[in-house]
Amino acid sequence: MSKSYHVAILGATGAVGTELLELLENRDFPLADLKLLASARSSGKTIKFKGENIPIESVSDHSFDKIDIVLASAGGGISKTWAGVAIEKDAVVIDNSSAFRMNQEVPLVVPEVNPQNAASHRGIIANPNCTTILMTLAVWPLHKVKPVKRIVAATYQSASGAGAKAMEEVKTQTSAILQGHPAVAEVLPYPLAFNLFPHNSPMTDLGYCEEELKMVNETRKIFGSQEIRITATCVRVPVLRAHSEAINLEFETPFSPHEAREILSQAPGIRFVEDWQTNHFPMPIEASGRDEVLVGRIRQDISHPCCLELWLCGDQIRKGAALNAVQIAELLIEKNWLSH
Amino acid sequence: MSKSYHVAILGATGAVGTELLELLENRDFPLADLKLLASARSSGKTIKFKGENIPIESVSDHSFDKIDIVLASAGGGISKTWAGVAIEKDAVVIDNSSAFRMNQEVPLVVPEVNPQNAASHRGIIANPNCTTILMTLAVWPLHKVKPVKRIVAATYQSASGAGAKAMEEVKTQTSAILQGHPAVAEVLPYPLAFNLFPHNSPMTDLGYCEEELKMVNETRKIFGSQEIRITATCVRVPVLRAHSEAINLEFETPFSPHEAREILSQAPGIRFVEDWQTNHFPMPIEASGRDEVLVGRIRQDISHPCCLELWLCGDQIRKGAALNAVQIAELLIEKNWLSH
Repeated sequence: MSKSYHVAILGATGAVGTELLELLENRDFPLADLKLLASARSSGKTIKFKGENIPIESVSDHSFDKIDIVLASAGGGISKTWAGVAIEKDAVVIDNSSAFRMNQEVPLVVPEVNPQNAASHRGIIANPNCTTILMTLAVWPLHKVKPVKRIVAATYQSASGAGAKAMEEVKTQTSAILQGHPAVAEVLPYPLAFNLFPHNSPMTDLGYCEEELKMVNETRKIFGSQEIRITATCVRVPVLRAHSEAINLEFETPFSPHEAREILSQAPGIRFVEDWQTNHFPMPIEASGRDEVLVGRIRQDISHPCCLELWLCGDQIRKGAALNAVQIAELLIEKNWLSH
Repeated sequence: MSKSYHVAILGATGAVGTELLELLENRDFPLADLKLLASARSSGKTIKFKGENIPIESVSDHSFDKIDIVLASAGGGISKTWAGVAIEKDAVVIDNSSAFRMNQEVPLVVPEVNPQNAASHRGIIANPNCTTILMTLAVWPLHKVKPVKRIVAATYQSASGAGAKAMEEVKTQTSAILQGHPAVAEVLPYPLAFNLFPHNSPMTDLGYCEEELKMVNETRKIFGSQEIRITATCVRVPVLRAHSEAINLEFETPFSPHEAREILSQAPGIRFVEDWQTNHFPMPIEASGRDEVLVGRIRQDISHPCCLELWLCGDQIRKGAALNAVQIAELLIEKNWLSH
């Protein structure tokens, strides 16, 4: 990896953009230079990166000249508008929005799960939904050994999944309640402080919200299996950062919890956390700011001989978004898969 | 119901005791007089009830003389010590602890579900675990129409389930974090403010904590069905009051969500809350302080033709504990089932 690359971050000022900057600064990423793109509102400001003040530029037709890799995290609308322009300039767009994820021509990649799919990109690789990334990381190592038949998932999703403003809103609401004042909800539809509610993404005709269907459809695409049956209940909880998931896995035949533990203890991207004596299992405060997804509390489901229960927490801004995107970029570089 | 009854509250100063007092004050309960019993520590203090200051007495051999009904909520050890004494004095003990729940001679009763079981008591009736009460209320009306084969539950349990001190601890921790200080955990094993963790009840050899096994075993006893298969993941969340549950129900044959909605809209003890347009479903802040369990978000499980998903929130101190106990007392009075 002696070559270095021209990278642009589209959406540099958001929660994921901030995390991307931190990762590029701290990982051994072969960066030639970094361009920061954001909306016109942020244009003219600067962001400190490796001791240097980098100006934030408003995105335009020439933003992608000489760029090798675009890390896009500015929402589906922006990605749809600019991805084509970037691709024409021979850049590869690693897109964090949901705009292209279910497009058959766009690979949807978790590097620990389906790195090979990245090879066939035509200029865009989609970064999966945060909740999906965390789940696939824990389920794939078991699925490889014995195919998963059905997943029943319930999530505990932090405020930061709805962006930095939602995170601030929860703090403000919490502070208000502690002082005896009412909680005002402006970013999220209902007060989240000391409360929780089913995920506020748009509702679909199936009675599943979009977040829930992402877990279903994206997992199937990443696993390359339309047979796997998945249901999910996604819930927002008053945690600032890191999502948690209670996952029930059904296999064709029994899967020994002992074997599952052995497999997950050595699986990439996972830190296995299980202390039955002290009731110490993955927790959001211990998952926050970490690269690894914390997985543990593997149990034989006492209601079904072929089912396992497991529990995980992962930083959805890091591995659930920014880190996964940077890992995809590193994969493309390592395998020499940048051209399209 | 022209007769009136001598009632004692054992554990009058706790979170459930406080709620019992409020219910007895506000319901049309035929009270002759009320005795408040607590540990020696609270002895000598008074509690205001219907405008009168009632002294708190330390429990003794003579505490139950002439008492008709004991509402016990002082923990399993206290119940085991004093239930026998109360029964010998011809009182009926409605016990909120887990001490007698799985005893074959002790009925375990949710009045909306299995009122008839209360008839055969021998002096003790057990009040089920809070999480179990909430779940049975929502599942029983469906189970009566078409037997439930399997339940996969994930819970979102508030701090108050661990008592008033845990509730205060979460507030103190939250306040500390908002001011940039660390969160100190003394009542609960880990900080709960802006965090969550698998339920901290003692771990069993099955890898299920006691809270999870209560949901399994108590539900089977209440439903009078050892065939029903149940698995649960119980999680503490930083909500002050009211528990939530994501419940996946498997039936032998498909159960129409439309029919389930019709049934639950008219079921006793339930308030049906479902607005798909505004994504408005049961929330802890709307369930707190209410008698009814809020149930809604009924969905056809897209992973299994015979499964339904549902979501509920209920005040675990009220219907999950105090109200259910008072309802049992009212049932015994109404049916003339007090003698034993």
